[in-house]
Amino acid sequence: MRTFRLVIACPDRVGIVAKVSNFLASHNGWITEASHHSDNQNGWFFMRHEIRADSLPFGIEAFREAFAPIAEEFSMNWRITDTAQKKRVVLMASRESHCLADLLHRWHSDELDCEISCVISNHDDLRSMVEWHGIPYYHVPVNPQDKEPAFAEVSRLVKQHDAEVVVLARYMQILPPALCREYAHKVINIHHSFLPSFVGAKPYHQASMRGVKLIGATCHYVTEELDAGPIIEQDVVRVSHSDSIEDMVRFGRDVEKMVLARGLRYHLEDRVLVHGNKTVVF
Amino acid sequence: MRTFRLVIACPDRVGIVAKVSNFLASHNGWITEASHHSDNQNGWFFMRHEIRADSLPFGIEAFREAFAPIAEEFSMNWRITDTAQKKRVVLMASRESHCLADLLHRWHSDELDCEISCVISNHDDLRSMVEWHGIPYYHVPVNPQDKEPAFAEVSRLVKQHDAEVVVLARYMQILPPALCREYAHKVINIHHSFLPSFVGAKPYHQASMRGVKLIGATCHYVTEELDAGPIIEQDVVRVSHSDSIEDMVRFGRDVEKMVLARGLRYHLEDRVLVHGNKTVVF
Amino acid sequence: MRTFRLVIACPDRVGIVAKVSNFLASHNGWITEASHHSDNQNGWFFMRHEIRADSLPFGIEAFREAFAPIAEEFSMNWRITDTAQKKRVVLMASRESHCLADLLHRWHSDELDCEISCVISNHDDLRSMVEWHGIPYYHVPVNPQDKEPAFAEVSRLVKQHDAEVVVLARYMQILPPALCREYAHKVINIHHSFLPSFVGAKPYHQASMRGVKLIGATCHYVTEELDAGPIIEQDVVRVSHSDSIEDMVRFGRDVEKMVLARGLRYHLEDRVLVHGNKTVVF
Amino acid sequence: MRTFRLVIACPDRVGIVAKVSNFLASHNGWITEASHHSDNQNGWFFMRHEIRADSLPFGIEAFREAFAPIAEEFSMNWRITDTAQKKRVVLMASRESHCLADLLHRWHSDELDCEISCVISNHDDLRSMVEWHGIPYYHVPVNPQDKEPAFAEVSRLVKQHDAEVVVLARYMQILPPALCREYAHKVINIHHSFLPSFVGAKPYHQASMRGVKLIGATCHYVTEELDAGPIIEQDVVRVSHSDSIEDMVRFGRDVEKMVLARGLRYHLEDRVLVHGNKTVVF
Repeated sequence: MRTFRLVIACPDRVGIVAKVSNFLASHNGWITEASHHSDNQNGWFFMRHEIRADSLPFGIEAFREAFAPIAEEFSMNWRITDTAQKKRVVLMASRESHCLADLLHRWHSDELDCEISCVISNHDDLRSMVEWHGIPYYHVPVNPQDKEPAFAEVSRLVKQHDAEVVVLARYMQILPPALCREYAHKVINIHHSFLPSFVGAKPYHQASMRGVKLIGATCHYVTEELDAGPIIEQDVVRVSHSDSIEDMVRFGRDVEKMVLARGLRYHLEDRVLVHGNKTVVF
Repeated sequence: MRTFRLVIACPDRVGIVAKVSNFLASHNGWITEASHHSDNQNGWFFMRHEIRADSLPFGIEAFREAFAPIAEEFSMNWRITDTAQKKRVVLMASRESHCLADLLHRWHSDELDCEISCVISNHDDLRSMVEWHGIPYYHVPVNPQDKEPAFAEVSRLVKQHDAEVVVLARYMQILPPALCREYAHKVINIHHSFLPSFVGAKPYHQASMRGVKLIGATCHYVTEELDAGPIIEQDVVRVSHSDSIEDMVRFGRDVEKMVLARGLRYHLEDRVLVHGNKTVVF
Repeated sequence: MRTFRLVIACPDRVGIVAKVSNFLASHNGWITEASHHSDNQNGWFFMRHEIRADSLPFGIEAFREAFAPIAEEFSMNWRITDTAQKKRVVLMASRESHCLADLLHRWHSDELDCEISCVISNHDDLRSMVEWHGIPYYHVPVNPQDKEPAFAEVSRLVKQHDAEVVVLARYMQILPPALCREYAHKVINIHHSFLPSFVGAKPYHQASMRGVKLIGATCHYVTEELDAGPIIEQDVVRVSHSDSIEDMVRFGRDVEKMVLARGLRYHLEDRVLVHGNKTVVF
Repeated sequence: MRTFRLVIACPDRVGIVAKVSNFLASHNGWITEASHHSDNQNGWFFMRHEIRADSLPFGIEAFREAFAPIAEEFSMNWRITDTAQKKRVVLMASRESHCLADLLHRWHSDELDCEISCVISNHDDLRSMVEWHGIPYYHVPVNPQDKEPAFAEVSRLVKQHDAEVVVLARYMQILPPALCREYAHKVINIHHSFLPSFVGAKPYHQASMRGVKLIGATCHYVTEELDAGPIIEQDVVRVSHSDSIEDMVRFGRDVEKMVLARGLRYHLEDRVLVHGNKTVVF
């Protein structure tokens, strides 16, 4: 069923819901899902509606025009998306295949509603798996002494494929700040720890050293500061003294792929609203 | 902060949210929390609003009158409650104290927003604990050969205390059908299994016999059919071959008290809407 | 690191551990993992040792001979396995690919220590995915009017591939009793509910009807009675009123594949000891 | 059932289990529970046995003497405890009652096998609750300008009651280093975050600021470095954008009391072995 998704964030005040729902009702809009959140701490309001496209008398462009005055009146940050327009996603990976394989299978079995434009990797290991899915694979090696050419090429490929979302599916390189800024809130990373614990390299080793009893994974938007961007989703799994670092890595893989898949899904369904360094996930 | 809670269930159609939010906005109502659910399977719509009482120009009675025409128009089952009016709760228990002690402590430390009118038990064991909290304790023994007099007395006490909610906090007797009918969706039970598994007596023994790897607890409204009423909340805990039935009972106690406390809280906050044999929990 | 796994179940009495550990120590056996369980309820004892193969002065056959008198003395059910001998696994599936794809990826990335001899399916849909992994694919359609020929063929293929384990990775047919008996404790199924709730067909529909707040999956050995065999592993995921049956099916897929992968792993590592209708999982 | 608990840590080598189990078998010791762990990373071995006291021909002192040569031979850190000797526990709290009330109820209903010698608090708020349980309550106010006299008094009380375990059940003061050293691995704290995230004050505020999707609690031994001691147990609970800091505090209370109760129980049952800054929990 084709729907439009209307996503709004604005300063909180009386009458927003009334205004928006009147607008929808006056155009006979059939709301299939509605979510609201008032952040009392900073006086901000968030809203997401999913509306059956066939219940409305107009398309998305006319919707945009008709809604603009309301958005203006309430100083809204807003967007409307059409589920008929699949988002274009670029996946990036290195050598470890679990997150990539998981996302590809979900896409292949129609669980992830998006278009996977291509996969970019700094290694050539996963080419055959990707190409079996009929997806272009670009091998862009990164020279540790001079990373710039590689990231210029990455940037070019992302642009060429007109990507709306970039997913770092265990891509083991740090993106340059300029790219982070250009694609703010559009680059999704999976970090293999329960942030803010164990930022940076080898988090399972850090976790083992500290003797924690649960390990986790965190899906977040990439910002210039390493592993510090807005968190979309997290989860954990229990470990014990009897689990070696290798066991942790293995358990962790399952958490990583689940958390990344959920986080990406929320993003693709326009469920994630970023405010400051935090997210509202409807 | 005093709020009114407006809770609505009605056949789904276009314009409900607009109508209700217009009504609220026209009276300057400040919505602090709003939840919606469209049940597409049976075409039913559910809604809950929490509105600051001091933002409205009238009290709850005037609200009721003003809203009645809208309720009529959309054939709503609805209610509005005032957080300044604490719900009167009667707790029932037998010999095991964990659920009762947990609820009493939450109430004592202002976590449960209700009035505990009294405790009724078929044993006298827990009197001192209850009376320390300043709550009346009624010992109503149940004669296994003739249970009627006991339940007549229970019924009388519940009426005398004008109870709006009755909580079976591990009360090990089956309430008579008439009482279940009279207090439909007002009697909350905690069953010590993950329903619908292990209905009836000794669920942990049943669970041990079947060799399950998780055990659970279920908070539900009591209906005439044993352990078959609408489920409000459930949770589980992992067990293994090394756990004896005694261990299961011990682990289970913690799940029971958490699940009951959450379920009761949802009920007290008017978050639970029953439809058929299922619940919407906002 | 190559290890031998010594797995023992016997009537409990004083001196078993001493006898076994003496035996191992006298041959200089380096124990890397040891687990014990006394089932006090039925007086049975379970034990699993993992021993470095290179620490012992003999191979597995000599071990068997040397240990036999002890096994005899204590009336042990026992086995010793060699991690250098990978178990031969036959996977069976129907149309849904999530469990199969998950197991194939784990195997492909060396996470599952076994040999996958072949995949048998009553449909041809998953052939390309399986063959990409270099694994033979047999399409054995089941005629609903006469299932016998199909199961004769399945039986022949399982024998031909000398399978030690058969995994029903969402194979939507019920195996005939004879096959269940012949491969007792060697056929592993994933059932898409938290057993014993929702036995049989369409468990997510049953779960939705009952209004449960958690759904689950169960990995168990197949016996003649449907969904009633010894449980190896279970897990659950939270659902709410807002989740449709389709959502439940989707959430369920993730639980199913995790639970099946864990259960199969336990089996492959000789961690599962069946006693009556229950399992010890070390 | 009275048991002896034999707890051992020593450098790993062949023959330890054989030696110990021979010793037990030669004295006819009936092992009800046995756990082993080889830490391959640092070559250390850990073992815990629970043995029926009535199966042995001698008491705990004779056991100690008889076992000493073996302990010597293998350079063991070891202890043997008798379940007939309940451990003496001193509880410390401030104003928040949830952890204290939870522990008192568990003790009162015979779930925690220990003697609670007294409660020490820097406030007088919880006196009545404690005294209802028949336990002495000491109010030792802490002068922020000069904390020494208070901690001298705390130290004196702990000694006077001959405490074997001190539990900081949300005691909001930092113990002086000398006390930490004197009672190393004997002072158990509950920290209201998932360590190592959010060390120090107001962890729920820190968690809310960072926008995490799970919050947790950590039970650990107190060392001189704040919130950095060996972790015994941890757990988490899911939160969302709709949860205020107050909600987090409330959810957190339930995790805190569960995690502290489990951690204390493990300690009382001699299940926790500290090695470096990590624990083995059998």
